[in-house]
Amino acid sequence: MELPKRVQLKEVGPRDGLQNEKGFIPTEEKIKLIDRLSETGLDYIEVTSFVHPKWIPQLADAVKVLKSIKRNPNVTYAALVPNMKGLERALECNVDEVSIFMSASEGHNQANINKSINETFPILKEVVEGALAAGKNVRGYVSTVITCPYDGYTEPTQVVRIAEKLFEMGVTEISLGDTIGVGVPTQVDTLLIEMLRHFKSEQLAMHFHDTRGTALANVMTSLMHGITKFDSSIGGLGGCPYAKGASGNVATEDLLYMLQEMGIETGVQLERVTEVALSMENVLGKKLSSKQVMIARGEE
Amino acid sequence: MELPKRVQLKEVGPRDGLQNEKGFIPTEEKIKLIDRLSETGLDYIEVTSFVHPKWIPQLADAVKVLKSIKRNPNVTYAALVPNMKGLERALECNVDEVSIFMSASEGHNQANINKSINETFPILKEVVEGALAAGKNVRGYVSTVITCPYDGYTEPTQVVRIAEKLFEMGVTEISLGDTIGVGVPTQVDTLLIEMLRHFKSEQLAMHFHDTRGTALANVMTSLMHGITKFDSSIGGLGGCPYAKGASGNVATEDLLYMLQEMGIETGVQLERVTEVALSMENVLGKKLSSKQVMIARGEE
Repeated sequence: MELPKRVQLKEVGPRDGLQNEKGFIPTEEKIKLIDRLSETGLDYIEVTSFVHPKWIPQLADAVKVLKSIKRNPNVTYAALVPNMKGLERALECNVDEVSIFMSASEGHNQANINKSINETFPILKEVVEGALAAGKNVRGYVSTVITCPYDGYTEPTQVVRIAEKLFEMGVTEISLGDTIGVGVPTQVDTLLIEMLRHFKSEQLAMHFHDTRGTALANVMTSLMHGITKFDSSIGGLGGCPYAKGASGNVATEDLLYMLQEMGIETGVQLERVTEVALSMENVLGKKLSSKQVMIARGEE
Repeated sequence: MELPKRVQLKEVGPRDGLQNEKGFIPTEEKIKLIDRLSETGLDYIEVTSFVHPKWIPQLADAVKVLKSIKRNPNVTYAALVPNMKGLERALECNVDEVSIFMSASEGHNQANINKSINETFPILKEVVEGALAAGKNVRGYVSTVITCPYDGYTEPTQVVRIAEKLFEMGVTEISLGDTIGVGVPTQVDTLLIEMLRHFKSEQLAMHFHDTRGTALANVMTSLMHGITKFDSSIGGLGGCPYAKGASGNVATEDLLYMLQEMGIETGVQLERVTEVALSMENVLGKKLSSKQVMIARGEE
């Protein structure tokens, strides 16, 4: 079984996780969370989103958060940016890296961005050019790469087409999202076979949701294709507002456990990450369902 | 990705699941559970255990349960049997198949059976011979095949040695248990490479616990080795009294989801199984944590 020796985790909890919480998490708690995550060995944290607060009120404090966190020089702090207005605000806060996003399927793109796929490209192009001009790397999220809640199965060739466009703009890495957490290993396999005909494994990251418990199996399949970058979320926070189900992104600590036990280096300390996840239970006023958190709570 | 076309699920919830519950589940509820499971398409159910009630008080009603269930002719009803006394009682109830058990590690075998591995063989031999003489197939469980909570890592060659002994006795199938749910795919891979040097894939079943979220990833690895039989437990019931952690056996419905979406036939109806799992929440007075149950509850 040939697997990569080292994997990078991209922590998306403060953004992808918290944007899906019902209540508003106090700004100081967000800052504390990010500062604690910065001390776990994680070297990439997506801290917030500059999507208009009308759409994501939970992250209306993006500027405050980004300006107030303690910057660990070993960590890249990224933020989600939908358009030029968002980019301006992100650059004002000296974000390290910019993330843009769109969907591989028309239905989800329309629901999420209120535009067709073709209408979305020029908007993103402007953002990418602006970010590059400011000396920032740009990461591209492509959602619903396996199945769309509106359009059904997504053809891998469609994901290739979108990714090509984004790379042409100057995006350096694309994160492929199984947004509603329905994917199974055979689908990931089919998708990656097609993607790796066109792109290098270093250009891709995988973004799995554990809604149906298949996230780690999908990670395994991706590792076998040489993928070395995975998005994950502290405590398994997150989810998709368009899909019911208790689980969000694959939990950073559960992914870490598997990688660690397989001898794959990440540079991240499992115990510290689990402590941070546990501390979020008080902040959120609910129990988290990651396996490492359940074990740490001593549940039987 | 070459995977088997068909997989058999061996439902162990009524035994492995319920024996780990704190309270005693009323006999009629057990019977109802097994009868409902018998209508889901499952063709193998381990219904109870004839271990002395001093050790497993939760299943003290083994005779009553086995005598009272409605036998579906398409289903094999098995029971766990530790010794000749247990075998007699199981045969009295006309059990279809007998399961014996031991551990691959001395520490766990001693804790579980109160005997060394070498002391255990003659007892099992007697049971196997008795069962075969009565015309019953015998299945062998081997626990702690990856790691033992007492002895640490289990050498695959040790698992081979135990399996050889059991097959020599006349056991027809061996279920390899990651009893404390610590295993990761690379370990499963190493174990199966060694096992399949000595045995055929049809002789083996895998028994994963999802304590650390790796069960479905481990199933995938096993499928890639051609394994076609998996133990699972309705609702993810179960666990190990010697290991903390919220999760028990891999949930039948979560395993089913993955197999179904990969186009692997099982003959089992996911919706029905999920309904049965949901109904167990009332019986047990607690929420179950399988993903399919959480989705069915509409949790977000």
